[in-house]
Amino acid sequence: MLNIRNIQWVGGAGSEAAGCLRLLDQTKLPGEQVYIDCHDVATVWDAIKRLVVRGAPAIGVAAAYGCVVAVQEARGGASEAREVLQKACDYLASSRPTAVNLFWALDRMKRVEPCTAEALLAEAKRIHEEDAAMCRKIGEHGLELIRRLHPKPETRIPTPGISILTHCNAGALATGGIGTATAPMYLAHEQGLPLRVFADETRPLLQGARLTAFELAAAGVDVTLICDDMAAQVMREGRIDMVITGADRIAANGDTANKIGTYNLAVLAKHHGIPFYIAAPSSTFDLSIADGSAIPIEQRDGREITDSYGSGGAKAQPGIPGVKTYNPAFDVTPHELIAAIVTEKGIIEPVNSQTVRRLLA
Amino acid sequence: MLNIRNIQWVGGAGSEAAGCLRLLDQTKLPGEQVYIDCHDVATVWDAIKRLVVRGAPAIGVAAAYGCVVAVQEARGGASEAREVLQKACDYLASSRPTAVNLFWALDRMKRVEPCTAEALLAEAKRIHEEDAAMCRKIGEHGLELIRRLHPKPETRIPTPGISILTHCNAGALATGGIGTATAPMYLAHEQGLPLRVFADETRPLLQGARLTAFELAAAGVDVTLICDDMAAQVMREGRIDMVITGADRIAANGDTANKIGTYNLAVLAKHHGIPFYIAAPSSTFDLSIADGSAIPIEQRDGREITDSYGSGGAKAQPGIPGVKTYNPAFDVTPHELIAAIVTEKGIIEPVNSQTVRRLLA
Repeated sequence: MLNIRNIQWVGGAGSEAAGCLRLLDQTKLPGEQVYIDCHDVATVWDAIKRLVVRGAPAIGVAAAYGCVVAVQEARGGASEAREVLQKACDYLASSRPTAVNLFWALDRMKRVEPCTAEALLAEAKRIHEEDAAMCRKIGEHGLELIRRLHPKPETRIPTPGISILTHCNAGALATGGIGTATAPMYLAHEQGLPLRVFADETRPLLQGARLTAFELAAAGVDVTLICDDMAAQVMREGRIDMVITGADRIAANGDTANKIGTYNLAVLAKHHGIPFYIAAPSSTFDLSIADGSAIPIEQRDGREITDSYGSGGAKAQPGIPGVKTYNPAFDVTPHELIAAIVTEKGIIEPVNSQTVRRLLA
Repeated sequence: MLNIRNIQWVGGAGSEAAGCLRLLDQTKLPGEQVYIDCHDVATVWDAIKRLVVRGAPAIGVAAAYGCVVAVQEARGGASEAREVLQKACDYLASSRPTAVNLFWALDRMKRVEPCTAEALLAEAKRIHEEDAAMCRKIGEHGLELIRRLHPKPETRIPTPGISILTHCNAGALATGGIGTATAPMYLAHEQGLPLRVFADETRPLLQGARLTAFELAAAGVDVTLICDDMAAQVMREGRIDMVITGADRIAANGDTANKIGTYNLAVLAKHHGIPFYIAAPSSTFDLSIADGSAIPIEQRDGREITDSYGSGGAKAQPGIPGVKTYNPAFDVTPHELIAAIVTEKGIIEPVNSQTVRRLLA
């Protein structure tokens, strides 16, 4: 059972029963489970900025609760509260300026009537619950894909369970619920299906190792950590039945941008005849983009690559003299390599412009 | 120009002009260039054991010099020298008990007549020079493959140079010369061919980042470090013209065992229509093995994976509670995915049992 609560509201709201936003500090995972109680909006801003809370849906939920914290902190009248809320929203929006869910959640909070801590808390909880419900729906649809394979015929590696490979963290820690790519895994585990998950560590920032492996293990799921360059060999040994990852942005034809290394898995899965699935909320689709070629690939600081040598007794300085780095944060997987996209509205399968349009209509 | 000397003999030999074995401490790379002078055989043993010197050919060369150090250290007569040498060989052989080149070099040293420091030094230098010549021959044959592509037609990414991706370290640091996979790169650079190398960092032990990127940059080669999970995207962007890696063991049909992640690149190269090459001395072939299925895959300690989280502010303890690891040290690339194998005797192309037998005959 999933027993991590990355985002919680503790207590009530308003001057009588002031509560606070409690966040699991994801920068300390997997070494320590430390919670940060946010009693003022500056602490919420800092938590989003520093990736204490990360993942598009989770950031939206945290920011919504951040609005409650702000208005509660001001303890003024109703007219003042509206002003405080507006300022808090502008402030929180500056914490991660490219996070679409953040703006969406703040816009929703601004429309709350009356502008009281109690009403704002009720709306933040609705946003949180809706996100959890969305994750669960993705899980239910994804579970159908797992059930197709179970019970599976005898394979080269005699494991009774269904074995799923995932990349990065599209997990509970990134959402207000049981995650997107992880949702089918949690439901399969809940229903007692034999399950084994392989988690790519996901260089350079190791979200797979630090977050996905951690949260699955905490829920009692059988999870095995591998390095990204081992996936091909693990597939060749017959140890993987399907691949599921999340998505950052999906074009109208199904081409999918996600964490660097996702496309790598899609190519490997095709070579080994293993189905490759994307799990993401329907809000991830950007129908204004015809295909993946129009999705810009963010290039990030090469020190993310060079600053993490801990092995073999060697510790590098930031960078090696004369060595360049190339650090694309995302890649684009063409829709031909994606067997299906699982959303809260259902499964898109096969993946092309027509099937995407049909499901989202 | 390559200006790293990983293995050197400094001074003469014998009681009159005692010299020593100077090793570049590869455990300190790329942060520091520290040399260790070995004046006694215990220091040589320790250097091989601790991976101060690593790479099969380099270990053989270092062990040969280690025999000189041992006999010189004893400073006895000729009959005593033979005994000292025998003991030193037994001792050095225990430093890396699976290194075939180590035993081969020690066997050669045992046969030296007369058993004097001077004669032993001459033999060690011959082993060293032969290894350097082997590397150069591989480089010359590999250069033919690069020349096939140069000048190249206009590609999606307008870089004038030939762009080569490599994995792990089959470089100068692993041999007594200019390496195996790197040899064609050094020769292309020497001859002024425009060249760009992408180096996979090579998890879990980061030999690509710590060693390959370092040695190429030190020689003035244009080298760019990437994470292993970025290779697919870099290929898709049209940035790679060929892939060259080394090999640990090659079966009679050309199936090749090499550092984990090599097979991953071979699959990706095939998908993107990029030639994938192996560069290795002919001694790497094991004709007693019909194909790759008979090559055992060494499983290593999972702490190699979990002990190196330095990113994102998180530092894991050795392992994460409840998280398993799977850490195969090697993978096997089937010969169908290998466009050619470059040896000091020539190029095997296409790769199959007949062409392998023909070249090695």
